[in-house]
Amino acid sequence: MRVYNFSAGPAMLPLQALERAQAELTDWQGSGMSVVEVSHRGKAFVKCAAHAEQTLRELLAVPDDYRVLFLQGGATAQFDAVPLNLTRPGQSAAYIKTGAWSGKAIAAARAQGLEVAVIADQADGKYTTVPAADSLTTPDDAAYLHYTPNETIGGVEFGYIPASAGVPLVADMSSTILSRPLDVARYGVIYAGAQKNMGPAGLTVVLVRDDLLGQARPGTPSVLDYAAMAASDSMLNTPPTFAIYLLGLILDWIGQAGGLAAMGARNQAKAAALYGAIDGSDFYANPVAPDARSWMNVPFTLRDPALDGDFLAQAEANGLTNLKGHRSVGGMRASIYNAMPMEGVAALIDFMADFERRHG
Amino acid sequence: MRVYNFSAGPAMLPLQALERAQAELTDWQGSGMSVVEVSHRGKAFVKCAAHAEQTLRELLAVPDDYRVLFLQGGATAQFDAVPLNLTRPGQSAAYIKTGAWSGKAIAAARAQGLEVAVIADQADGKYTTVPAADSLTTPDDAAYLHYTPNETIGGVEFGYIPASAGVPLVADMSSTILSRPLDVARYGVIYAGAQKNMGPAGLTVVLVRDDLLGQARPGTPSVLDYAAMAASDSMLNTPPTFAIYLLGLILDWIGQAGGLAAMGARNQAKAAALYGAIDGSDFYANPVAPDARSWMNVPFTLRDPALDGDFLAQAEANGLTNLKGHRSVGGMRASIYNAMPMEGVAALIDFMADFERRHG
Repeated sequence: MRVYNFSAGPAMLPLQALERAQAELTDWQGSGMSVVEVSHRGKAFVKCAAHAEQTLRELLAVPDDYRVLFLQGGATAQFDAVPLNLTRPGQSAAYIKTGAWSGKAIAAARAQGLEVAVIADQADGKYTTVPAADSLTTPDDAAYLHYTPNETIGGVEFGYIPASAGVPLVADMSSTILSRPLDVARYGVIYAGAQKNMGPAGLTVVLVRDDLLGQARPGTPSVLDYAAMAASDSMLNTPPTFAIYLLGLILDWIGQAGGLAAMGARNQAKAAALYGAIDGSDFYANPVAPDARSWMNVPFTLRDPALDGDFLAQAEANGLTNLKGHRSVGGMRASIYNAMPMEGVAALIDFMADFERRHG
Repeated sequence: MRVYNFSAGPAMLPLQALERAQAELTDWQGSGMSVVEVSHRGKAFVKCAAHAEQTLRELLAVPDDYRVLFLQGGATAQFDAVPLNLTRPGQSAAYIKTGAWSGKAIAAARAQGLEVAVIADQADGKYTTVPAADSLTTPDDAAYLHYTPNETIGGVEFGYIPASAGVPLVADMSSTILSRPLDVARYGVIYAGAQKNMGPAGLTVVLVRDDLLGQARPGTPSVLDYAAMAASDSMLNTPPTFAIYLLGLILDWIGQAGGLAAMGARNQAKAAALYGAIDGSDFYANPVAPDARSWMNVPFTLRDPALDGDFLAQAEANGLTNLKGHRSVGGMRASIYNAMPMEGVAALIDFMADFERRHG
């Protein structure tokens, strides 16, 4: 009896992948061992990790001059790893601030001794907007330009890739990677925690262009040193084997579902249906500018916040879980990542209409 | 059809825990969601993580003035995290070198700018010995004394806790934690990758005494900052939820099996039986000094190395897997962590005797 789980992350995963993992959890590939019990350096697991990497490369059409790294510590570790790998203290880097997660990335860069040039800060719009593409200017002396293509908490997403004037573009794609086709070649570094569209928590995927390797500061912890991890095929230390295995199963599912073009069409349709229901009602509201609305995270409020508790309890009773908004935003948030089917969004829309009829 | 898996890590885990995880992998606690799909900040998972911590505290009798941290990046990340949390560049720290893993810890400490005093180096004994307890002197100005109670590759284990003359004692217990009772109060910091006695790869358990918190160097990545992680109950970033959940199930199994006293008696008996079989034969040999032999990792060689391939192939055909020794040592290695039953060790001993009869 599965529910429609709207959690922002860790999040709903494709049942096909979970059922496969379940079936073989005590006996993987007829080995008499679980996938969590085998050596990461054994043939079977090396092949499993290579399959995950190769499938990711195919789905994202990753150019040959990019390395795919499987790291640990989430996007939070990357907030430090990006400055540690790409800069020296006292250098400058450019950041775009569109909400909570880009704000954390900026704070970490400053703590690493960088001069941070915030070339756009959407505070005026209460972080419900993205800057106009033509308003952005990256300083020549910036080591890189960092932005957050999708803000998980605010539900704010860029509809374009910022121009970075020849400076490497760095993106925290935790909550948007694999949601649609992506032009990897536009980026210097892409990083993403797995626990939204890719798998369980505890795995971080990093794509880094070859020419950016080998510049890490002395003292960079080896597990966060891109060049050291690239040189060891991400096995400098024991990798999170279960998470990499499950990533591979989930990537297989994406491929079978038609790849990222199909995923993008489906995600766009899901988001359009949900925003349409919100906009078509005076009972519900979404605060985000239309050109900045996320396909992945849809925050919305009820006209009367006193009804929030009833809404959440009744939704849960109807098999629609984890709709409570982030504590900093309030209201509701429906995260509708790849694994959420259109049927789940439709069930939510039906419930919202029914709730409005009864309480509107 | 399960096998006896002698892998050094990731390693054999208790079937009871794996079967429980398997049964509820698509529907945890009747929630309609997998444990890997729920928010780490939701009530259910917070309770799950608290259960794992509490059970660990009870099994190890962790004093109240120690924090239990659930981190990522393995012991390798801790090789950097220990200097980053406890020292400034230019300070000195004392290390004992007994093999490959303590050697890596020393290299990382030097890379973090420490003056490393190696107060004992067992190179003369080809890393098959531990120093005599009364031969150790920790310099007064050392920030801490670091050692590796069990060297996973060499199969060398301390039979005593080194005196550290009032300096905090730091130990990499990756391959020995939970194998027997432990006097935590003797240590300042204990760290351990989970993938031997505790669970799947991707989780690192750190025990740190309160008075050692809050001294991290500026620029320490937040995910490796003990104080920052302690202040957030190890949820500064998204923790590796599946690994923490499985840790809890494995700790439950240890408790039901009689706790660490029972585990220690069982592990001692397993090791005694295997070393006895090796020593009672001219066909097999273990190079480690009797007072330094590991209960967890038992390397052994065949008189004729040309038979190694046959030994491994026939062992595998008999359901005894992953016996190949580390490439730096050669020969065989039987890792017999908590989850390896006496029956598995007995089966290995029987096979070894039979192989000797046929090839001796």
